Amino acid sequence: MKKGRMIVVDGSNGAGKTTVIEAIRDHLQHVNRETVFTREPGGTPIGEKIREILLSPEAGEMADVTELMLFAAARAQHVREKIMPAVEAGKVVVSDRFDSATVSFQHYARGLPLELITTLNEIAVDGLKPDMTIILDLDPEAGLVRVGSRGDDLDRLEKEKLDFLHKARDGYLGQAKASPDNFVVIDASQSLDNVISEVLSVVDQVIEA
Amino acid sequence: MKKGRMIVVDGSNGAGKTTVIEAIRDHLQHVNRETVFTREPGGTPIGEKIREILLSPEAGEMADVTELMLFAAARAQHVREKIMPAVEAGKVVVSDRFDSATVSFQHYARGLPLELITTLNEIAVDGLKPDMTIILDLDPEAGLVRVGSRGDDLDRLEKEKLDFLHKARDGYLGQAKASPDNFVVIDASQSLDNVISEVLSVVDQVIEA
Ligand SMILES: Nc1ncnc2c1ncn2[C@@H]1O[C@H](COP(=O)(O)OP(=O)(O)O)[C@@H](O)[C@H]1O
Ligand SMILES: Nc1ncnc2c1ncn2[C@@H]1O[C@H](COP(=O)(O)OP(=O)(O)O)[C@@H](O)[C@H]1O
Ligand SMILES: [Mg+2]
Ligand SMILES: [Mg+2]
Repeated sequence: MKKGRMIVVDGSNGAGKTTVIEAIRDHLQHVNRETVFTREPGGTPIGEKIREILLSPEAGEMADVTELMLFAAARAQHVREKIMPAVEAGKVVVSDRFDSATVSFQHYARGLPLELITTLNEIAVDGLKPDMTIILDLDPEAGLVRVGSRGDDLDRLEKEKLDFLHKARDGYLGQAKASPDNFVVIDASQSLDNVISEVLSVVDQVIEA
Repeated sequence: MKKGRMIVVDGSNGAGKTTVIEAIRDHLQHVNRETVFTREPGGTPIGEKIREILLSPEAGEMADVTELMLFAAARAQHVREKIMPAVEAGKVVVSDRFDSATVSFQHYARGLPLELITTLNEIAVDGLKPDMTIILDLDPEAGLVRVGSRGDDLDRLEKEKLDFLHKARDGYLGQAKASPDNFVVIDASQSLDNVISEVLSVVDQVIEA
């Protein structure tokens, strides 16, 4: 049996995560590997219910620590119910966001202590570590334009102030710099074709490693 | 301004918490103290949504750590949005369950490490500590008979096996023994009148202290 893999695609809102993951899906259909696509917060029935609470615009009164714990609860379920069993069965798991998002948004942007976030993440992931986290790096303003052009209503987290989004972006870049073996940063301001081709070459490397 | 107080009523399902809290409500109407009645999990709009996830019978697949984190998330919100502000305003807060329930059910009954629970509880309560936790102690079988006679459908947590409920009861007694200044155990197999009169005398002592 091949060794399972976990790949995370993360980055600012509108950077192209969902689009790129569709391209990964198409690409991996031509490779003989069972793949599981998932997302955070969510990925399991319980996690999707938690996601509803997190993204509900009425949840404006949510304390930062409550938010952090809800992300951790959804992640704990996601890892145990879905990711771990798939990786252990030799599959490739591709997740739209994971623990890198919590570090960026809750620590770098919201200012919660890194130690608190690390404590909760470690409990949630139970030793699981993505083989690679692909950061799609984009100026938040450009991301908002893209998301706006997508036409959906913005959810609670997308409505965060621009300053907050800049700090989160710095958080992604900071994490990538601190762990160069586990993160790769891709310039998401490039044409979609270029972004996709860079992403797919990282995916191939991770799968073949 | 009088000093705020927090009193928790906890114990096995069917021990009489809800009934006794109604008696406390009636009693405190004759005392000149603003009182806030609340419950866990829940107590806030966000917490009540988390409660729905926790008690949903479809949530049978929930990992123990997910459950623990959801309780902690609801508690974090409860403390910050409702309990702390009330206590700081000199009010008396009476809560149906609180952190003692997590220690009993998640540690003593489910077997999660006490250290993990303490870590999450400490993050959730942010230094707040009940002035008194009143444990209504009852044999779980007797509690189930009472709950059955109440006629409602059992929720997911009420359906737990009897062995589990016995361990949780031991957990309440263990906590009370370890912290005699902060816990009082009341024999809930007595007549309701006796239980209520013991509870009200504890409440009066806490409020007048
Ligand atoms: N490299 C790119 N150049 C231009 N537009 C892009 C690019 N990548 C994605 N988009 C567009 O930006 C919008 C947001 O992309 P999406 O994949 O939903 O981002 P995310 O999932 O990261 O929020 C979509 O309309 C998508 O078509
Ligand atoms: N001391 C008691 N003796 C007999 N029945 C009781 C006593 N206390 C409560 N009950 C009854 O037991 C049932 C469960 O009580 P309840 O207050 O809902 O318990 P809990 O909230 O602890 O689950 C109710 O029908 C209540 O009237
Ligand atoms: Mg997306
Ligand atoms: Mg009750």
